[in-house]
Amino acid sequence: MTARPLAIAIAGLGTVGAGVAKLLRDNADLIAARAGRPIVVTAISARDRHKDRGVATGGMRWYDDPVALADDAGVDVVVETIGGSEGPARALVEAALTAGKPVVTANKALLAVHGAALARMGGTLAFEAAVAGGIPAIKAIREGLAANRLSRVAGILNGTCNYVLTTMRERGLQFAEVLHEAQKLGYAEADPAFDIDGVDAAHKLAILAALAFGRPVDLAAVHIEGIRGVSALDIALAEELGFRIKLLGIATRSAGGVSTRVHPCMVPKGAAIARVEGVFNAVVAEGDFCGRVMLEGRGAGAGPTASAVVADLIDIARGRLTPVWGAEALDDVPSLPMEAHVGAYYLRLMVLDRPGVIADVTGILRDERISLESMLQRGRAPGEAVPVVLTTHDCEERQMRVAIARIAALETVVEPPALIRIEAL
Amino acid sequence: MTARPLAIAIAGLGTVGAGVAKLLRDNADLIAARAGRPIVVTAISARDRHKDRGVATGGMRWYDDPVALADDAGVDVVVETIGGSEGPARALVEAALTAGKPVVTANKALLAVHGAALARMGGTLAFEAAVAGGIPAIKAIREGLAANRLSRVAGILNGTCNYVLTTMRERGLQFAEVLHEAQKLGYAEADPAFDIDGVDAAHKLAILAALAFGRPVDLAAVHIEGIRGVSALDIALAEELGFRIKLLGIATRSAGGVSTRVHPCMVPKGAAIARVEGVFNAVVAEGDFCGRVMLEGRGAGAGPTASAVVADLIDIARGRLTPVWGAEALDDVPSLPMEAHVGAYYLRLMVLDRPGVIADVTGILRDERISLESMLQRGRAPGEAVPVVLTTHDCEERQMRVAIARIAALETVVEPPALIRIEAL
Repeated sequence: MTARPLAIAIAGLGTVGAGVAKLLRDNADLIAARAGRPIVVTAISARDRHKDRGVATGGMRWYDDPVALADDAGVDVVVETIGGSEGPARALVEAALTAGKPVVTANKALLAVHGAALARMGGTLAFEAAVAGGIPAIKAIREGLAANRLSRVAGILNGTCNYVLTTMRERGLQFAEVLHEAQKLGYAEADPAFDIDGVDAAHKLAILAALAFGRPVDLAAVHIEGIRGVSALDIALAEELGFRIKLLGIATRSAGGVSTRVHPCMVPKGAAIARVEGVFNAVVAEGDFCGRVMLEGRGAGAGPTASAVVADLIDIARGRLTPVWGAEALDDVPSLPMEAHVGAYYLRLMVLDRPGVIADVTGILRDERISLESMLQRGRAPGEAVPVVLTTHDCEERQMRVAIARIAALETVVEPPALIRIEAL
Repeated sequence: MTARPLAIAIAGLGTVGAGVAKLLRDNADLIAARAGRPIVVTAISARDRHKDRGVATGGMRWYDDPVALADDAGVDVVVETIGGSEGPARALVEAALTAGKPVVTANKALLAVHGAALARMGGTLAFEAAVAGGIPAIKAIREGLAANRLSRVAGILNGTCNYVLTTMRERGLQFAEVLHEAQKLGYAEADPAFDIDGVDAAHKLAILAALAFGRPVDLAAVHIEGIRGVSALDIALAEELGFRIKLLGIATRSAGGVSTRVHPCMVPKGAAIARVEGVFNAVVAEGDFCGRVMLEGRGAGAGPTASAVVADLIDIARGRLTPVWGAEALDDVPSLPMEAHVGAYYLRLMVLDRPGVIADVTGILRDERISLESMLQRGRAPGEAVPVVLTTHDCEERQMRVAIARIAALETVVEPPALIRIEAL
């Protein structure tokens, strides 16, 4: 091996940054063989110089200001593992690209919010670790399936949500109980909103949609609903109906444009994605020649994320480069509003057990030209609230919203209706 | 777009070759954007110039001898879709590499048999299409998971076998019935031996093992058993025991070396790979940092295979190159013999329903120090043959072979014992 080592700098030594340093050390021989030359950490920036992170930083140049890494002439590639769409992470990535240094990042928020502008700066920006952790989903879509016109890309993109939904189902618990437990186990953050409300999944979906359809990343267009509203009752009823509830990110290309949405979905129990449980992630892509391809694995954690970061470094060491969003020129495909979504729906109402209630509800659906697929009424308790479940054939989201508002206003409907979209995957 | 088009030649216009030509035509705009330049078919070789293949060959140079494509100065890259490990396919690939032209091939037999020698010739040899069709498995293992020390790579690598086993289970049919039907439907060849006897899966496993463990491809070391011996009875009994029977290719790295084997396996019904049914393929890789990653999709057919071939062409157009087996220097890791395999076993005997039979069988297992996990005896028919099923804890294959030979020799055992290895995946 005579090639010059690739000298890298790591900014941020949290879980991911420390994981990258550990991986580069533990598998140095194998990485050098596959990269064609050694990959060596020469500079570091982190908040606290004296904290023990389980990785030796001796012999590496230390910077208090991460942005200074971009100006270190001895650094070939900058690895950004600080996180966040603004502040030092963004400043460093912009400085490194301006200095002509390739950047590898795990920062989905930065990519989702500023990815289009960063790509216009030119240079190499690699981000395999930003989506689905240890699963090489970015590479699969951007290179492996590059010959295909993709019609849909979808996935279980947030392990915390999938863990919560899986545990609710397996143990018959309510959302709040499982979330509390997940926080104690370290599967959910102290402030879980970013995961639970679907924001993290939306960042990843915006990135996947840009790659899949060759268009500028458009986070603002993503319709986002989290899993707070999913109840143990709906999970049990889904099971009875042959479905499983998953938080999915789904991007679809149709004649009119691209729709991107993150929300709880009912997927048929028999679907491959329905069986991806716990903290695991999965990404599905559908192409005109490849058909449907699914990838599953660990979407987070030090090891899987470091695996993805170092894969990007090996690509750079080998000179295997790709335009940030897969092509130099991107399509100006419009984003479609959620109101235009067409699909089937699961609707669960709590109604007073009185004559005429079902007639009122089904009358509203008929008025809005929504046709029923099935109806399930469980238990009788005259005068008290009982659940009624309806599933529909395909209709437009805008029709459904009108119907839901009218149904919610009925005097006999005692709780806000639960609505979960049914997805064939 | 000002870059010069990449001029390719296609040798062989069967299902795959014609599929490649069609894909390059149908998605020309998108492929040019992702490749950074157009990819254009300029020369062709096939057996019958006048056969209609659904793709226009006008304007392309025609060669009766595929090897002549290597000498066409107007050809940048040769696509070999003739097939077979010898003859014109091998001659063409060698000639193209000698001429310094990159080669893209879907030819698993060629790679499995001559892959080590071809790599020593130098040059670019890409073969995403050789394993698991439309699933970007080669890219995932060689690039996406390149930072990992892999401990195991395994998969459902032959769609015909998976279709036959799935159909046997779903409809309770015997092997011969389903094979006959599969042949009528075009899911199995008129001469099915190559698929059914595990040879095709062994080719693919030899390729995956070489990539996963960075060693020269070693087809001769692969232990191969096909699915002819799998009976409807064993499939039904597997179901009862909580297993599903799959033909898997499994390559494992241990301290002593690499074991590679293709044979029917009992996998727990709950395992992700157990649910990959019908003609679908799947590849699982286990790495020290990424954890377990599984990819599934269509493993054969014109579309998926063309998708993989053109992905390789896009990589070449972009200059994204990788050594044939992932690294310049390969490890000289020894191959382990099947006798050294350690695992659990399912054993199904047909025994005469007489006193003492079970004592004889379990006595032999005890003599060979094989410990039982479970035993199942179904139905009583004094003096007649009844099935007895035993599952064992982990033991060595060589112990099991001795035990099986002794059990088969018992006067009360009326059929050759059925042995299926149990695999945790």
